[in-house]
Amino acid sequence: MRKGRLYVLSGPSGTGKGTICKAVMAQGDPELALSVSMTTRAPREGEIDGVSYYFVTQEEYDKTVAEDGFLEHAGIYGNCYGTPKAPALEKLESGIDVILEIEMQGAMQVKRAYPDARLIFVLPPSLDILRNRLRGRGTENEEQLQRRTASALEEIQKIADYDYYVVNDELEGAVARVNAIISAGRLEVDERAAELVKKYEEEK
Amino acid sequence: MRKGRLYVLSGPSGTGKGTICKAVMAQGDPELALSVSMTTRAPREGEIDGVSYYFVTQEEYDKTVAEDGFLEHAGIYGNCYGTPKAPALEKLESGIDVILEIEMQGAMQVKRAYPDARLIFVLPPSLDILRNRLRGRGTENEEQLQRRTASALEEIQKIADYDYYVVNDELEGAVARVNAIISAGRLEVDERAAELVKKYEEEK
Repeated sequence: MRKGRLYVLSGPSGTGKGTICKAVMAQGDPELALSVSMTTRAPREGEIDGVSYYFVTQEEYDKTVAEDGFLEHAGIYGNCYGTPKAPALEKLESGIDVILEIEMQGAMQVKRAYPDARLIFVLPPSLDILRNRLRGRGTENEEQLQRRTASALEEIQKIADYDYYVVNDELEGAVARVNAIISAGRLEVDERAAELVKKYEEEK
Repeated sequence: MRKGRLYVLSGPSGTGKGTICKAVMAQGDPELALSVSMTTRAPREGEIDGVSYYFVTQEEYDKTVAEDGFLEHAGIYGNCYGTPKAPALEKLESGIDVILEIEMQGAMQVKRAYPDARLIFVLPPSLDILRNRLRGRGTENEEQLQRRTASALEEIQKIADYDYYVVNDELEGAVARVNAIISAGRLEVDERAAELVKKYEEEK
């Protein structure tokens, strides 16, 4: 049977990768699952435990690291994030595509461990627009904003490590582009060739 | 500047690859061009010279072969077909994606000469349905139909040589799948990485 593909949606903070991810998942594709990350950071307003993230203590997080229970994990801005390994691998095995929405460090870890993963870089239309979006969020001071914009450019400079890019100019278009990437992935002949041929041979 | 991608739509005779191709082109995407093949076979009803094919004499065809003017060329069922090289390469150079709708022999030639070409295999929903479609065309006798169905299976057995497959169960779905393949191709980072980065660096 066909295995699922692992898609990693990453890119600088504030590019809207979370919103794209949510909108892609809201389409209700039964062959697509979202991986829920674990984090030690505090929930933001509106975030739900087990849906947005699994909000855990540092102790619980460290335990999972020690048990090699993460597909990737990283510390970002003093907080820890990790993708639980078992649920993602189970879904892939059963033919379900899995999306991870993670930071760049994690994306690179996934690529090293799973070279078949498809990395999608979410780009802001411009750095100016990115800065304004982050400012609108109201969770950071000006110094933090400058640091984030500078690190966004550093991340963009590593875009060659990614397989696809999606400019988030407007949500609907960005979602359509992610959909196209996932649809095309399902049409690749790859390991399914033998299975496809068999179907027609049996008919003869 | 980004170069165009070469897509080859191929598959057994009667799978409807011509119809899919026409419907994809009818969407009017300005960044997608259809390569018009040359053939020595007689026009079928409704086929227009310069649109469906360039209908040429054997002499004109042989001259183009001698001048190395084909991207691929092959003799199928006693007729000769070829893809003129110059117009396709010009479009690719100027950033336009190009679709070729050709037989399998030609598809393999293209893949050898242009490994970056993406080969799409158009599959019938079943061999039975394929036979009925060919019969409905009314251009072949039963012996020819059996030969075509047998050779269709032989072609399907080589599907591992292709990059993508599209089952032509219904036209609209098949067109959407080809669209997804082409859209995803345009979102690949590949040789555009440096260009993408530059845009953001200039903004700083």
